[in-house]
Amino acid sequence: MKKLRGICLGAGYFSRFQYEAWARIPEVEIVALANRSLDKAREAAALHRIPRAYAWADLAAMLDAEKPDFVDIITPPETHLEVVRLAAARGIAIICQKPIAPTFAECETIVETARRAGVRLMIHENFRWQPWYREMRRLLDAGMLGELFSINIRTRLGDGWQDDAYLARQPFFRTYPRLFCYETGVHFLDTFRYLGGEITSVYTRFQKRNPAILGEDAAQIVCGFASGATAILDASRYNESDAADPRYTFGLVRIDGRKGHVELDLAGKLTLKLLGQPTRLLDYPHTRGGFAGDCVHALQRHFVDCMMSGGPFENTGEDYLKSTALMEACYRSQATNQVVTLP
Amino acid sequence: MKKLRGICLGAGYFSRFQYEAWARIPEVEIVALANRSLDKAREAAALHRIPRAYAWADLAAMLDAEKPDFVDIITPPETHLEVVRLAAARGIAIICQKPIAPTFAECETIVETARRAGVRLMIHENFRWQPWYREMRRLLDAGMLGELFSINIRTRLGDGWQDDAYLARQPFFRTYPRLFCYETGVHFLDTFRYLGGEITSVYTRFQKRNPAILGEDAAQIVCGFASGATAILDASRYNESDAADPRYTFGLVRIDGRKGHVELDLAGKLTLKLLGQPTRLLDYPHTRGGFAGDCVHALQRHFVDCMMSGGPFENTGEDYLKSTALMEACYRSQATNQVVTLP
Repeated sequence: MKKLRGICLGAGYFSRFQYEAWARIPEVEIVALANRSLDKAREAAALHRIPRAYAWADLAAMLDAEKPDFVDIITPPETHLEVVRLAAARGIAIICQKPIAPTFAECETIVETARRAGVRLMIHENFRWQPWYREMRRLLDAGMLGELFSINIRTRLGDGWQDDAYLARQPFFRTYPRLFCYETGVHFLDTFRYLGGEITSVYTRFQKRNPAILGEDAAQIVCGFASGATAILDASRYNESDAADPRYTFGLVRIDGRKGHVELDLAGKLTLKLLGQPTRLLDYPHTRGGFAGDCVHALQRHFVDCMMSGGPFENTGEDYLKSTALMEACYRSQATNQVVTLP
Repeated sequence: MKKLRGICLGAGYFSRFQYEAWARIPEVEIVALANRSLDKAREAAALHRIPRAYAWADLAAMLDAEKPDFVDIITPPETHLEVVRLAAARGIAIICQKPIAPTFAECETIVETARRAGVRLMIHENFRWQPWYREMRRLLDAGMLGELFSINIRTRLGDGWQDDAYLARQPFFRTYPRLFCYETGVHFLDTFRYLGGEITSVYTRFQKRNPAILGEDAAQIVCGFASGATAILDASRYNESDAADPRYTFGLVRIDGRKGHVELDLAGKLTLKLLGQPTRLLDYPHTRGGFAGDCVHALQRHFVDCMMSGGPFENTGEDYLKSTALMEACYRSQATNQVVTLP
């Protein structure tokens, strides 16, 4: 079997999870990587046993030389459009990290660029690929909970209260004018859509709790689904949880429906309680390997499956524009202290 | 020592907690009770060892004959104004169950009636007297949590999903056009005010989950404090909790502040986690006796202390008008699907 040839762009904090997951997908060979800093590119290539490392200036030449089947964009949002243009022009399929781009207009341009070139574009939005959300969705699809009433997610990452918050891992977070909802909240907004369908109204209250950073690091968000159900996100990167590893499930989740409710704890334990019946533990697969229940691997596995079968991606660019539009609506709600309705 | 002479009005479901708590306050003697149904009045008098039982028609005569120091009004809201007028005219102090009255105008009339007559009026709003809320307030006052950031309460009573919901305990709930926020939510709104100060904006999403009743039985409410902090109430009487006794703490509570957070579980356990420090269990007194941590007793104890010292009530009528106005604002938010600001 001929392997899919991939190249990766980026060697920052999160890229390790993507390189590590590619190494566990036998149908894929990552043949090269590039990064703004060539030194860091070489380091990452050595670490992840990737044959060749390139400097950013050689991006076009790299694509021409390597002729990959796909490119995995793991660099910050402001770099995405440039890469998408180069890849699309060469007919190379794309996985692109979220946020797609810094502005909604640029997100649209990226999606449109891929569409016009006829290249496949999948957004690397991994939260919905966490195993507990897959299990919740399975329960909902099977009608176990009946009509969906509400989703409540509370996340407390506790990685943002120190004076030097984010410096070690994602230092650029400190200067983002829009931090929490743009970078982290959008994960949950997309997850809400995954679980409950389209959202038609939002109300938000954002706060900056750590004075050492520029953007907001805490938020309360209330979403109204087209179905009439409600989702609440109560979020902070400043305050802490009691989790041994706050970055395993990233929060507590409760879903209520007409027949009962399901709850996720901080260790990945899922319980189901049907009305009038005892609470029971749900037996489902979840693992401590990789990132947050190995969701990066699950997402990349889905990408490869679709590349090989020709089947549709779940995380298309078009679909993620909806999560992005919702995130933008959250900022509009914050600016006006009013409910914002979506078309 | 001369005991305070009290009379009680009402013999419905909740009155048992009030009678039982009076019996444990040595400075008080409940000398008589009255009820719409004289048979039920006699039954309750026998059960609670109260000397005399009266019919509702004899209310004025009862007050003239018994000459009580105070009257404890435990009847439904629509009866309160009549009683307050009779008691105020006779200079008798009043404890009045919440909701004060069915309409805001009538609430104002009640408070004004007592004020003009110069009689003391305390509202029986017992939630803020639950021992865990007292402990949380103590922590906040002591500066343990630093600046208040947010309060999150999730309540799932699970007593409202059956076809015969509320029939056994509080059957009139079934025909209330406004159920959850008017009857139950206002407890939490008052508790938010107790913990976080005045509230200047609300946004709500109400739902009727049980089709067999008239009013709403679930709600999401977001409150903005004057301080900038936020409170979220995610509530349902339809869906269930996992509590052995859902009517002990009535819900899960989390309070976040600049220095850390405190959490309440369904069994009354309070834990404190200061930033960067381990979670620790708080040792504070709470008891399974009486109603919800014996809050009715604590409230009545406060009433008696103030009656004897002449000191101010915490639960004045004037203060509870603010909680009532907030509850009314919630319904306006629901009607318009917009944020409502309060003066």
